[in-house]
Amino acid sequence: MRLSWQRQQIRPRHRFATSGWGVDEKETIVIKLEHDGLTGLGEAVPSTLYGQTLESAEAALEVIQGKLGDDPFAVEPIVRRLLDEHDDQRATIDGIDAALRDWCGKRLGVPVWKLLGLARPQKQTTFTIGVADPELTRVKVDEALAAGFDALKVKVGTETDEDTLSYIRERFGGPLFLDANQAWSPGEAAGQIQRLARYKPTIIEQPLRPEDWQHMAALRELGVAPIFADESCERPADVIRLHNHVDGINIKFTKCGGIGEALRMIYLGRALGMGVMLGCFVCSSLAIAPALTIASLVDYADLDGHLLLAEDPFEGIERDGGVISLGDLPGLGISACAPR
Amino acid sequence: MRLSWQRQQIRPRHRFATSGWGVDEKETIVIKLEHDGLTGLGEAVPSTLYGQTLESAEAALEVIQGKLGDDPFAVEPIVRRLLDEHDDQRATIDGIDAALRDWCGKRLGVPVWKLLGLARPQKQTTFTIGVADPELTRVKVDEALAAGFDALKVKVGTETDEDTLSYIRERFGGPLFLDANQAWSPGEAAGQIQRLARYKPTIIEQPLRPEDWQHMAALRELGVAPIFADESCERPADVIRLHNHVDGINIKFTKCGGIGEALRMIYLGRALGMGVMLGCFVCSSLAIAPALTIASLVDYADLDGHLLLAEDPFEGIERDGGVISLGDLPGLGISACAPR
Repeated sequence: MRLSWQRQQIRPRHRFATSGWGVDEKETIVIKLEHDGLTGLGEAVPSTLYGQTLESAEAALEVIQGKLGDDPFAVEPIVRRLLDEHDDQRATIDGIDAALRDWCGKRLGVPVWKLLGLARPQKQTTFTIGVADPELTRVKVDEALAAGFDALKVKVGTETDEDTLSYIRERFGGPLFLDANQAWSPGEAAGQIQRLARYKPTIIEQPLRPEDWQHMAALRELGVAPIFADESCERPADVIRLHNHVDGINIKFTKCGGIGEALRMIYLGRALGMGVMLGCFVCSSLAIAPALTIASLVDYADLDGHLLLAEDPFEGIERDGGVISLGDLPGLGISACAPR
Repeated sequence: MRLSWQRQQIRPRHRFATSGWGVDEKETIVIKLEHDGLTGLGEAVPSTLYGQTLESAEAALEVIQGKLGDDPFAVEPIVRRLLDEHDDQRATIDGIDAALRDWCGKRLGVPVWKLLGLARPQKQTTFTIGVADPELTRVKVDEALAAGFDALKVKVGTETDEDTLSYIRERFGGPLFLDANQAWSPGEAAGQIQRLARYKPTIIEQPLRPEDWQHMAALRELGVAPIFADESCERPADVIRLHNHVDGINIKFTKCGGIGEALRMIYLGRALGMGVMLGCFVCSSLAIAPALTIASLVDYADLDGHLLLAEDPFEGIERDGGVISLGDLPGLGISACAPR
């Protein structure tokens, strides 16, 4: 198998920010796996939140290149080895996992979701309203509702919360996810959550810093909304650790390393009685497709990374209002947009 | 999809017995799934240990027939529904799961293990010496060693234990699994296990009755061998319950309902730090193949059901000494032997 990669520049339509950071433009890495006359594609979306950079991803790819063997169908043993050897570069492993599965599906002429025995992916996604000044927030909310999104996620934990949420709740009665992205200390979180209760959140994500995870159990007792772990939950072992501390988990491929690890986290979460959602970072359709492939297995999807872009370099994911879906194209079903 | 089934008579070469029950001959159910000009095969191996009979399996098949839909690739949603509706007939669900996956592999021209992204199955299996009088036991041990088996499992919990184990340990220094099949009470188990310590068991399976599972933790403290749950561990939820009570679990397809549920149990066991083995009942190669398909993911395989038979009605599993393997044939890689 021959691996090659290149950086890809993407830009959100509007600056995308949380309580802690913001993105005006970013780069991800498109990974190409060539073997036996066919090409599989994947996207690595490194996040500094998890010690991953473009440079560390490229360094990992250099090491991995030429050590992949000659059988793309051996996804599980290949990825197992990569997880053992590059545990801290799971965004890169995710990209390789995707490229391998894309190749296999293309070789057999079937979509990856069919290879996995799953139903055709067709899932409501939340559309995320990042932190912004009130004027821009209103533009974003109006755009989202006009586009037919019927579940919203709002990044909270700043002084604009009330303004944003009031504006939304005057116009929208549907599911509303709140994501604090570690904004609060254990001492203040309960008060903040109670303050936001009147907006009737569906869930509240990561109210505390990862190191404060043991304080999340107390926040469940408030009864405002189920508490989901995001930054606190990277890998399968974290799901076990968080049992009885949170109501649910947000699985992201950048954190866990691809479809196989995500499936393991879903099964663990389910068996432990947790709610399960799939999330993403700002990325192109190529990185969303693997997550959407298995989205029929989870409670909630927040797979809007590609929908936030000014221009998506890839295509293949359909959207109908708030529902995104994949069709019957072989592999991940994603291809590069024609140059404009 | 069209489902049909028929009973199949099989007979162990020698009477096969545990501390609690014995088999001279038995029937299993061969399930045929026809769709779009192709046939997928699976075998249901009902066990009265789990409230399953040939009659209950056939009754379930009658209900399920005609409700499977028209897409064999939708294995996961189909099996999920069957598990919800026929939780007590998981041997039957296993047979259907196998037939669906066999069909998919045949349709795509690849083995099921390749569809699952796994390495080619090639796994050491224990060969099981059931309970018998000393004379027959010696014949069975001699046959097993002559056939090249390099890991043995012995059914213990009767007064012939010492005789059998001494005879084996005089001839064989390799891995020796002991399976008590619930033979002991919580009060006597520690003494029994200490008595057997000198035969240096690799693991000890199910020393207690299922209802006594909470007493297994104390037996781990003896330090004689890891304690594995078998009859105490049927489904994914049991793996969670047994966490910290046993060292490992024996997964059988008759208990859990096929490849998907077995994978979930493997992932759970792994994440919880448990040892994982795959086991079986007396059955033909057709019921062994699905378990062997995923055997690369577990620590130990006890997949000798077909090797105990006088005549196996199916073929396709290779054996080289103690190692069994599957090749590159599409689907489960199993076909009916030509009539003799």
